[in-house]
Formats: sequence, structure tokens, C-alpha cells
Amino acid sequence: PAPERPATAMNTTPSFTHTLRQRWQAADSMLCVGLDPDPARIPAHLGTGPDAIDRFCRDIIAATADTVCAFKPQIAYFAAQGAEDVLAGLIAHIHAEHPGIPVILDAKRGDIGSTARQYGVEAFDRFKADALTLSPFMGFDSIEPYFEWAGRGLILLCRTSNPGGNDLQALSVLPAGNATETPPGAPSPRQSASDTASGAQPEKLYEHLARLAAGPWNVNGELGLVVGATFPDELARVRTLAPRLPLLVPGVGAQGGDVNATVRAGLDADGYGLVINSSRAILYAGKGTDFADQARKAAVATRDAIRAARDAARA
Amino acid sequence: PAPERPATAMNTTPSFTHTLRQRWQAADSMLCVGLDPDPARIPAHLGTGPDAIDRFCRDIIAATADTVCAFKPQIAYFAAQGAEDVLAGLIAHIHAEHPGIPVILDAKRGDIGSTARQYGVEAFDRFKADALTLSPFMGFDSIEPYFEWAGRGLILLCRTSNPGGNDLQALSVLPAGNATETPPGAPSPRQSASDTASGAQPEKLYEHLARLAAGPWNVNGELGLVVGATFPDELARVRTLAPRLPLLVPGVGAQGGDVNATVRAGLDADGYGLVINSSRAILYAGKGTDFADQARKAAVATRDAIRAARDAARA
Repeated sequence: PAPERPATAMNTTPSFTHTLRQRWQAADSMLCVGLDPDPARIPAHLGTGPDAIDRFCRDIIAATADTVCAFKPQIAYFAAQGAEDVLAGLIAHIHAEHPGIPVILDAKRGDIGSTARQYGVEAFDRFKADALTLSPFMGFDSIEPYFEWAGRGLILLCRTSNPGGNDLQALSVLPAGNATETPPGAPSPRQSASDTASGAQPEKLYEHLARLAAGPWNVNGELGLVVGATFPDELARVRTLAPRLPLLVPGVGAQGGDVNATVRAGLDADGYGLVINSSRAILYAGKGTDFADQARKAAVATRDAIRAARDAARA
Repeated sequence: PAPERPATAMNTTPSFTHTLRQRWQAADSMLCVGLDPDPARIPAHLGTGPDAIDRFCRDIIAATADTVCAFKPQIAYFAAQGAEDVLAGLIAHIHAEHPGIPVILDAKRGDIGSTARQYGVEAFDRFKADALTLSPFMGFDSIEPYFEWAGRGLILLCRTSNPGGNDLQALSVLPAGNATETPPGAPSPRQSASDTASGAQPEKLYEHLARLAAGPWNVNGELGLVVGATFPDELARVRTLAPRLPLLVPGVGAQGGDVNATVRAGLDADGYGLVINSSRAILYAGKGTDFADQARKAAVATRDAIRAARDAARA
């Protein structure tokens, strides 16, 4: 068989960040609706199984598309049900019916070399996502393989809003040059560049990551960061370190983040820059046959709250 | 629909670590064969697509089963081809034809709450894996949901063998109580316990993780760690910090790790403790119709090299 070279590397699809910037302005929205179809919470009248997931998500998409800057399907909900074909169909449906709305596949993949390339085939060739979330734990060479897909967004976990986000991400790290122990392996050139830039001050692991993603790691100009809404001071710190990167912000709505504080902390210089995700608070706003209407009301209210916060912050 | 409570929580399946320990002794092998069916490298006579993946892997399994302590399918290779059904069939085949050989699903999942539970459904209910690899970047609450599946192994990335493994994992971290900046969020109780135990000395991020996995995070006694073969000194350090945990060691064979140094560094007190993975060096030992025979020869040679190294280290 022919080697699996991604066909998309040569195409002329607009880049993820370009599409996203256009959509922020065209819809005047920084709301992202997360597609997390939990079988235990899909309205009963839709039934069960992959068909129910498909009907539920299509109704949510139709009800909320004009309110969003992006959709973010979470792959785990589809994989648990063996509903990969439904996921592919939904993304194709968004591209066909709502062109200009980028689709971020939330999969938090993290692997290297030929395995990472297979995840790229999965996300970009099979599912046709515009962007993919990634875990940076394995370092730069777990990001690099995805650059083969020109223009696709790569959104790295940086500072997550769950309590365990503190366990590693909030640790203070010593730049390699200032460490009390010599690293057993030579640091990668890209890391050394960053350490020099950081002035050898201790910083949090998530700050170190934001610096790398905004600088030496952002080879294709398509990186973004996942930063939770729970700690606005940290969101502001990431924005300072990464002034131009799109920030995907979960944790507004069901997870309790404050919209005003989030927007104030995270806006970029253009007054956009945020992809503020809400999943459960929109998807499950209603439990009955009017679930799509209820979802729309919740989406409009969230979009408007984000707009108002943006206007206040810019005033 | 009924809530998705895992059915396996109440069953009597032997635990992963118990099964693995029995297999280490019964086969006197610490070799794991990684099932990474790359379409570009499957022998041409097998054809292409999911059927070729299935035939290739079944022949590899038949040729190597008696030489291994575990099989480790890498999910990306199946997902890229839409071959999830093939993966489920292969794992069922291993369980049916080769009982007692645990299957580690290499997926490096990392998410929280209801999303993590969906990944648990995927790995343990859908694919019936005995163990799953996880990324610890999001902290303890990205591990905790999987404890619902009683006895399933959870193998956390700790120190990977790729060059970028240095980018985060080899950073020196300051325990929270010794940090120059006050953490913005309270550290989790489990992290505090570990920091106290560490005596407030700077340590590498991977050492911090090994300490957590061997101690407060190992709630179900089924945790393991992924530690690359490239840096034997670091493998020895992890073994010191985690004397009883199974260590999954990629990087022997195609990635260049040295078997003798790896075994010497990583043996546990019983003379086992390692799951030494080889994928490409075994799967693609031959390119022709004799690929399974060539794979078997490579597997036997690797198993025997591991045995000899173990015997030398124990002598």
C-alpha cells in the first residue's frame, strides 16, 4: 500500500486561526458549543444509541449555529458508543450547512512519531476536523507531526480548570540552566531558547508551556492553548505570555467559571481571542421535546453575556 | 436511557497486576509485543484496509503469543483506518485463544469527570482491555474515574524516551511548600501528602509523578508507569521511587534502548516488574510472506535477551 501521506498538506483550505478570526467578527461571538452527547442525559424521546446521538447533535447544531464561533465535539462520547461514523457525519454536516464555523475535535491526543501521525490521520483525514486538542506532556515532538496538515489548529492543554490541574500544571519549575541537578539528557534546542528567554526565574509549569507555545513551538502559527476559566489571574498571565494565541476556555457554565472575569482576563488586542466553551449548560438546558429551544436560549444568553463582558472590558 | 454504570465494577475478573505477575512467571517473559499495524509497512500480500490489519495482527499474535507477557495494541493505528471493530475483535481473540495474557490498550487518554468515564467505557467495556495507558497532565482527577472498573490496570506516562520527553518531564520542580510563589489554587490533599514525603527537595517532574503513582494516587493498587529505555539511570530512579509498580518500557529495539541496562535498572525485588515493549522491530522483522516467522524469531531473541539480562542482574 502507498505510504499514508496526508493529502491535506497541499490544499488551500483557509487556516484554522484565519477562519476563527473571521468567525469571531462575523458572528460577533466567542461562544463555543461543546458536543458532549452523554447517553444518560439525551432527552428520552430521542431513544438510545448512535442514532439518538446523531439526532440530538444535529438539533443542537441547528439551534445554536448562528450563536457560535466554533463547535467542539468531544470524541470520548462518540467512541464510548462506537459512534465514530456519527461523529464524521456531524462534522461533515457542519462544514456543509454552516461553512465558516470551525470544528475543534477535543481528543487531547499525545504521542510521538508514527503514532502521532496516525492520530493526525484520524482527526484531519478521517474526521475532517479544523483543529485538534493535544496534551503536551511528551514535549515538542508530540506536537510536530501534526504540522504536516497545513493550516490545522493544534490546541495544547496548558492550565486546566479541574482541581487536579494543580497537581502538575501549577508546580514551580526551575529553568534547566538554573536547576540544582544537571538534566540527564540534553534539553532540546527549543527548550533552551525558552529558558534563556525566561530569565531563569522560577515559573509555573503552565507558564513555561504558554511561553513555548507562543514562541519556539508555534512553527505553523496555528497553535492555541486550553486555559480554564476557574482562575482568571492565571488566564491573564497566559494572555500576557501568549498575546496572539487563541485560548480555548472550558469551565464557564456548568463548571462555574465567571464570564466577566474570564473575558476581562483573556481578551486579545483585537477584542477577541477567546473560544469560550459551554457544553452541559447548553446541551442539557432542557430535558424534554423542547430541548433544542432551551439550548438555543442558553446559547444566546451565554453569547450575549460574553459580548457584554467584552464591551465592558473594552470601554 | 439508563445511566452508563460500568458493568465490570462487580465482576470477578482477576486484577491486571495479578494476571501480569502470573504471566511473567508462567512464560518467564517480560517481553510485550506492541500491535502498531502501520498500513505503509504491512506486507503487501496481505492487501490493504481493515481486513489487512486484522490478518496481519492475528498472524503476529499466533506467532508470538507464547513469548510474551502482554500484548499492547496502539489505538491510533486502528482509529486512523476506521478499524475499531478489528481492534475489538483482536482483543477478544487474544482473551479467547490466549487466556492469561493481559492486553494493554495504548491510548494515553487524559481527561476528567464524565469525559474520562466515557474513555473508560471505550477502553474497558467496548474494547475489553485489561489495562489502559493514561496521560497524567490533568492530575489525579484525570485518573480517578477509571477506578470504577475494578482490577483494570492504569499505566501513567512518567518518563518517555523521545527527545521531547525532556521538555516537561525532566524539568526540576519545587514542591509547593517550598515554591517562591504561592500557588494560586490550593494544592490537592494528595499532592500535599507527597510534597511532605519528598522533604521539599527539588526533583524532576517525572520523579514527582513516580512518587505520586507509587503512593497516594495508587488507590486501587493497579497503577503502573511508562518509563522509556533510553535513560537507564532514570529508570533506576523510578524503580527506587516505585518499587512495586509494573513499568511499561518502550524504546527497546527500533528506538535503540539497551536491553541489559534496561533490565538491570528496572527489575523489581521478585526479578520481574518490567513490561518491555517492542513493536516495529518485531512486527516488521520481515517484509514478505514469512513475516510471521521472522516476527517470531525477533520475539524469541528479544525475550531471551531480556531473560539473560535478568539472570545476569540477579546473579
